[in-house]
Order: sequence, then C-alpha cells, then structure tokens
Amino acid sequence: MAVTDLVERLFESDKRAVARAISAVEDQENDHLKLLTSIQQRLGRAYRVGVTGPPGAGKSTLVSKLARFLNDGGRRVAIIAVDPTSPFTGGALLGDRVRMMELSSREGIFVRSMATRGSLGGLSKTTQLAADVLDAAGYDYVFMETVGVGQSELDIAEAADTTVVVLTPESGDSVQAMKAGLMEIADFFVLNKADRPGVDQSYNAISTILQISHPQMGEERDSEIWSPFIVKAIASENRGVEEVVKGIEKHHNYLTSTNKLLPRRRERIRNVVLDIVAEKLRRSFWNEARLAELEGKLDLVLANKLSAIQLAEDLTR
Amino acid sequence: MAVTDLVERLFESDKRAVARAISAVEDQENDHLKLLTSIQQRLGRAYRVGVTGPPGAGKSTLVSKLARFLNDGGRRVAIIAVDPTSPFTGGALLGDRVRMMELSSREGIFVRSMATRGSLGGLSKTTQLAADVLDAAGYDYVFMETVGVGQSELDIAEAADTTVVVLTPESGDSVQAMKAGLMEIADFFVLNKADRPGVDQSYNAISTILQISHPQMGEERDSEIWSPFIVKAIASENRGVEEVVKGIEKHHNYLTSTNKLLPRRRERIRNVVLDIVAEKLRRSFWNEARLAELEGKLDLVLANKLSAIQLAEDLTR
Repeated sequence: MAVTDLVERLFESDKRAVARAISAVEDQENDHLKLLTSIQQRLGRAYRVGVTGPPGAGKSTLVSKLARFLNDGGRRVAIIAVDPTSPFTGGALLGDRVRMMELSSREGIFVRSMATRGSLGGLSKTTQLAADVLDAAGYDYVFMETVGVGQSELDIAEAADTTVVVLTPESGDSVQAMKAGLMEIADFFVLNKADRPGVDQSYNAISTILQISHPQMGEERDSEIWSPFIVKAIASENRGVEEVVKGIEKHHNYLTSTNKLLPRRRERIRNVVLDIVAEKLRRSFWNEARLAELEGKLDLVLANKLSAIQLAEDLTR
Repeated sequence: MAVTDLVERLFESDKRAVARAISAVEDQENDHLKLLTSIQQRLGRAYRVGVTGPPGAGKSTLVSKLARFLNDGGRRVAIIAVDPTSPFTGGALLGDRVRMMELSSREGIFVRSMATRGSLGGLSKTTQLAADVLDAAGYDYVFMETVGVGQSELDIAEAADTTVVVLTPESGDSVQAMKAGLMEIADFFVLNKADRPGVDQSYNAISTILQISHPQMGEERDSEIWSPFIVKAIASENRGVEEVVKGIEKHHNYLTSTNKLLPRRRERIRNVVLDIVAEKLRRSFWNEARLAELEGKLDLVLANKLSAIQLAEDLTR
C-alpha cells in the first residue's frame, strides 16, 4: 500500500491501517520517514498516560478497565503494552495480554503489544513514534503500560504526559518501588488489590515517603507545585477505576493550567531527536573499514598492547 | 600528581593512588587517557565477579563475607558497589555500605562506592574502567555489586567474568527475578537467608526454572555447556560463603578450560570501545550551531510543521 493511501485510512481510524503503520515505524521500513512526516499535521491531540509498577501489581487489568470505562464514556482509547523481552516472561504475562487483546473487539479501542529489550534508547523512541501514529489516528488517550524493571519504566515516563505507578499492599512493594526509583517518576499512585491485608500499612508507608519527598503536602499548597497522591483500587472488580481517571484528568489540568504540558512535550521530542541522531551517527560511522579496524585492534587490547580508550581515539581521529 | 607518579604508586597498590586513579577515570579528567594507556600492560590478571539481585537480598553482606574469606586466604580483593542514584535509596542502603567500608581497614581489601543513573552506557563503561584500575593495582578479585533494578544488572553482567544472582526465600523473589531477566545473566545462584521459611519451595522453584531453560541438567552433560546451579547461604552468619567461592572458581575453570574466557573479555572490551566512540561522536556532533538549530526547530515540531524524524534528517544531512 502506498504511504498516501495508508495515511488516508489511518486518519479514518481504520484499525488495520493503524496496525500497519505502527509496524512500518517499528521495523523502520523504507517509507517510515514519509509516513511520520505525513501524520505530523495531526499530532498533539491524544493524551499520553504511562502505567508502570512491579510485576503482578495488576497493571494490565487496570489499563483494561480504564480503557473500557473511558470508551463507555465515548472516548477512543489506544493501549501500547510494552514487554521487556525475556525467554521466561512469555507464559506469566500471556493471560493478561489475552484479556487485554479481547478489548480490541470494541471499535473505539486499539491494543498493541510491543516486545523489546536492551536496545538503548530504542524502546523510548519506538514507543513514542507508535504513540504518534495512534495520536494521528484520532485516539483520545494513548496508554503505555510496562513492568517497572529494566530501563523500561524510565522510557515510559519519558514518553508520557502523566505517569501512574501501580503498587499493591504486598509487603515490601512500596520499598521495592522506592529503591527502583519508581517514586521519582510517579505523578500519582494506584494502590491496587486494596482488599488485601496490609493495605493501610502500605498506604501509610507510601504517604510517608511522599511527605518526605514533597514537604509541601498537607501545608498551604503552591498551585504551581504538583503533589502526588494515592488512589486505592481493586481493578479486577472495577473499583477505583473512575477515581484513577479523575486522577489523570487532575494531572492533565494541572499541566495545562501551569503551562507545563508543552514544555514537557518539547523535552520529549528533543529526546526522540537525540536518539534518532545518535543512531544515525552510529550507523554512518561503523562502516566496513572501521569495523575491520576494530576487530583487528581488539586483539592488541587483549594482548595489553593498546588500551580500549586509545583504540577509540584511533578510530575517531 | 603527575600521571607517571600516580601509575607507579598504583602498581605498588597504594590505596590513595588507587582511589585517585578511579576518580580520574570517573570524572574523565584530562589525563585519564594517559593513565589508562599506562596501566594497560598490567591488565587481565584480576578475576571479575558481578553480584546482583533484588533489593534486600543481602548482596552487600555476602560480598563483604566473600572478600573477608578470600583475604583470609591471602588474596587481595577489591569491591565496587554501584548504587543506582535515587533521592530515596541513600538511607536504606547506608547501613550496608558503612559495614562494607569497614573492610577497607584491611590492607588487602579496597572498597569503592559509585553512584550513577540514567547515563546510557555510562555505568558499564565507568565500572569497567574502574575495574581496569583495580586489576592494574594487583587485586586478585574485583567484585562489582549492584541491585538488580534499572539497567544496572545488565551492565554488571557485561563487565563481569562470572555473574552471581542472589535471591532469598521470600515469596515471589524467584518469580520477580525471572521477570526482571536476572535468570538470563546468572552463571549461578545464591539462595541467601536460607534459614527463612519457604527455602525449599524457593529452591525447587529456581531449580524448575533452570531445568526448563537448561534442559541438559540432570542428563549426561556436555562439558562445553555450563549448567547454572544454586548455592544455599546465610551470609550474615558466614554460612555458605566458602561454597560461593567454590562456585566462582568452578565457573572460572569452566571458562578457562573451554577457551571461553578470552572471547568473553574481548566482547566486553568491544562494548567499551563502542560506548566510548558513541560518546565521542555525540560530543563532536552537538556543537553550538547544531544545538541552536535543534532548539529553534523543536518549536516547528511542536507546531506540527516538521516531524521529529525529519528534524533529525535535517541535522545529520
């Protein structure tokens, strides 16, 4: 299909065209540059929400319920589920993913699974360009969901307007999240599975951490400063879902009213450009001659006749 | 101090010189290239061990005990403790770090803490160059320890000859490790805190995962194939420490006897060179004119008059 046809059908929200366009971007097909340029005129309308947290926190279930709730209210919703690739994760996540995919039968919901790992900057860039495609296709919300391990949670936060961190009352979850740096990227928290034992202790633990890190909480608030909060939910029973939507809207309103949304998006685009440029530089630098020089001289480094840093100097001179 | 003096004192294992040289590498001081070139002749003798696992698994305690045990046996041991930077992690880890630092009073043990986050490739490169300094200073073992969150556990595995993953019987630890991809980087496992409830279930869970992923286990073994195993330990009581040392030696012997150690190190050096080259390309590309062009044209992207990918094209043309 020619790019112009694909873009036309994309603008009509044809799901097959949307899927096709995302694949073109993911695989960096020849015409993906033309495609991305063609959709540029329609960008900036979708609101992008990142959802992350520890394994087993119920992120997929929550996102599914959020999508259903918003779609019931007439909004069009897209979901990008990012799975850090591992030979072992397949089985564990499969059930969640299948349930999520079932949502695709709704006309106003689009679900896409992306698997990636270890490509520095690659996840972030690809996720963002896929979100651009969904934005151009007229989805009101683009949810990007990933487990908070590896680099992926930072990538998702970078790609999102609002980042939601999902935790559970399980002992240690909040401490783990703290150590994993999830506290730094959360615009607000969902304490999911709130019918489980220990929910009050978990709530208090997260509150305490928030008070330490955001000392203005509880005092007179500066409306320019965002104070993360905690929403209790039992996503599997559809409880707390509306409150999470309100939390997202509250943060959206905050970003808009304080003129922070556009700078945030500008920063995001800058990082995408830096990623693409770095990849271009890398590709054009490592021609066959330089690769051959690298391989030959690596043996000199192993034999202690040359340092790695001197080899890099020689190559770039 | 002149580089030649510093290197001379480094070769005499002067701890202050070692610390000074690592700082020079970390901060990329002007003379760090000369320093790294000067120490090249002495590289390749230290054995490099990565230790990672979930928060609270007892990694610092285990590494401290390993260092003490090896040093009692006459070996010189260096430890690099890598902390993914977070405003919240400081307090939680401080106790462990203080205990680890106390080891420094021994003449034959050197301990260094490094804090870093989010610099793509930066942790790996800096950790490896610091390990080079310690190698040149005559340490027999260099332990690199980090929590298995973020990108750091992959960086550590890349920098190590042998990678040890520490888990505990705590419910879900093995499942979390599996999901976080720790299973893929472990040369063997330490099941620490083995006096806690659930140790047998945990042992069986990890064994099952290993059997699925390494189907040759239990059958006639091909000596060319490495089969990860599990060592039970209670590091705080010094139990299992000798067995962990034996596990490291077993893996070292395996790598040597199958001629896999040098290819592994060659791959490691290649990645360091790729990192350094990428950084050099980035620095020389982003001059003031290009940065100004980027900033100016970002507004065009925000206004939907230019795509991010076209902007990258324009900049690199």
